[in-house]
Amino acid sequence: MGRVTARRRASHVIDGTVTERPETLVVEEPLEIRVNGTPLSVTMRTPGSDIELAQGFLLTEGVIARRDDVLTVRYCRGSETEDGTNTYNVLDVTLHPDVPAPEVDVTRNFYTTSSCGVCGKASIDAVRLTSQHSPGDDPSIVTAAALTAMPSQLRSAQKVFASTGGLHGAALFGSDGAMLAVREDVGRHNAVDKVIGWALEANRVPLGGTVLLVSGRASFELTQKAVMAGIPVLAAVSAPSSLAVDLATQSGLTLVAFLRGESMNVYSRADRITR
Amino acid sequence: MGRVTARRRASHVIDGTVTERPETLVVEEPLEIRVNGTPLSVTMRTPGSDIELAQGFLLTEGVIARRDDVLTVRYCRGSETEDGTNTYNVLDVTLHPDVPAPEVDVTRNFYTTSSCGVCGKASIDAVRLTSQHSPGDDPSIVTAAALTAMPSQLRSAQKVFASTGGLHGAALFGSDGAMLAVREDVGRHNAVDKVIGWALEANRVPLGGTVLLVSGRASFELTQKAVMAGIPVLAAVSAPSSLAVDLATQSGLTLVAFLRGESMNVYSRADRITR
Repeated sequence: MGRVTARRRASHVIDGTVTERPETLVVEEPLEIRVNGTPLSVTMRTPGSDIELAQGFLLTEGVIARRDDVLTVRYCRGSETEDGTNTYNVLDVTLHPDVPAPEVDVTRNFYTTSSCGVCGKASIDAVRLTSQHSPGDDPSIVTAAALTAMPSQLRSAQKVFASTGGLHGAALFGSDGAMLAVREDVGRHNAVDKVIGWALEANRVPLGGTVLLVSGRASFELTQKAVMAGIPVLAAVSAPSSLAVDLATQSGLTLVAFLRGESMNVYSRADRITR
Repeated sequence: MGRVTARRRASHVIDGTVTERPETLVVEEPLEIRVNGTPLSVTMRTPGSDIELAQGFLLTEGVIARRDDVLTVRYCRGSETEDGTNTYNVLDVTLHPDVPAPEVDVTRNFYTTSSCGVCGKASIDAVRLTSQHSPGDDPSIVTAAALTAMPSQLRSAQKVFASTGGLHGAALFGSDGAMLAVREDVGRHNAVDKVIGWALEANRVPLGGTVLLVSGRASFELTQKAVMAGIPVLAAVSAPSSLAVDLATQSGLTLVAFLRGESMNVYSRADRITR
């Protein structure tokens, strides 16, 4: 586990009785992502799968579209603390010479493409303009039984969550219900970027024929990441937002939420779900 | 309620039976925050309390420190959709002439102050350098009974959550346990910024003698916001991260987490909690 969990002393208080004891916590550390040597973004993440995280982030932000767009990913030399140890918190991604370097602030430009009239529609339009992998034409079919079996598979695989209670999980499944990869992170968007970065390294992007399951809610941002990776089905254990549903509808993504026990809600492209 | 919730049709699937029905969802829309006419940040938020949100964001990012630092906050004219209606998704904040305009990308500069050796310590140092309101010297005392009564008060006040399942809540309490303000948002950081923005408008910043309760986890970012506002006690219903505990410890903030039923864990400055 190494840097994934850490121990800190805490006072446990119950009914007026105080006990001092060590607690296991999920580690949160900043990761700076540089592209061709220029800082692009800092995310607060749980260390581990950092190279997947950086590549998944660049894919879902529209900087890259396939594995060959990246030449190398390296921990930055010189990123040392005062005592000279590398923090392993700075990654430099070198792009293929044919790939344009991103704007300095990808995240902001992403949402503000339509300038002054920023609204949900502007955000959706920005995703549609940027995505090279649309899930709309994906012919995948998933059974309701395969979907309802997924959350317990994710929970079984989320070993760190069990000890800390502090981690979001994301998992990729084949449309037959077989789990392909699972990743955890203190940030929900990071867990998704890690699992998509795994797929990029395995040369499986665009991710046709897959289901992305997230342990929490379906926000616009997570829906956008699924669309950018060409994933046809996004399933969330908890609630979706209005803009997540609108983006899914306009992108041809199947959005499933409240996936609990034997039930679920399907907000778009329900034709991909069968008995 | 207006723009806080929206209805979308969904297919409810249970045990192979499909029912079409309308579902109530939490609304998510982008809010662009401009300062003196220059775009600074876009956040995906639930409409409502936008002016509080913008001011809370500027306070917790270190751009402003008190109410008088802001002259006006206005919805941007000209931010219209194609049919000419204002989106109410662009706010322009005019600062007092004595307040320096922020760097174009506050968020990134915030974490990268210590340049290449980015690590948890660098993040903590950045907060400590920027905060004008340290909670360290706050003499507040809160009883364990007052704390354990807070989550149910927050839940009672979270009316939208009950209908959508999609909202994070944040509430401010006096150290006597009386609830002062509660705000909800699809983004956990936005809910906190809204409640802190409320306090700024009420001229109650720095927020000595208060408890900030959040409905989810205690991340570095939320802990940072509490420190920046001078709040002495942060309480979370769920788990804290390692960096949240480290920042709380170094800032003299009392960090309570896993606040459930009659029990809680206290990770720092437990001397502020009494029977």
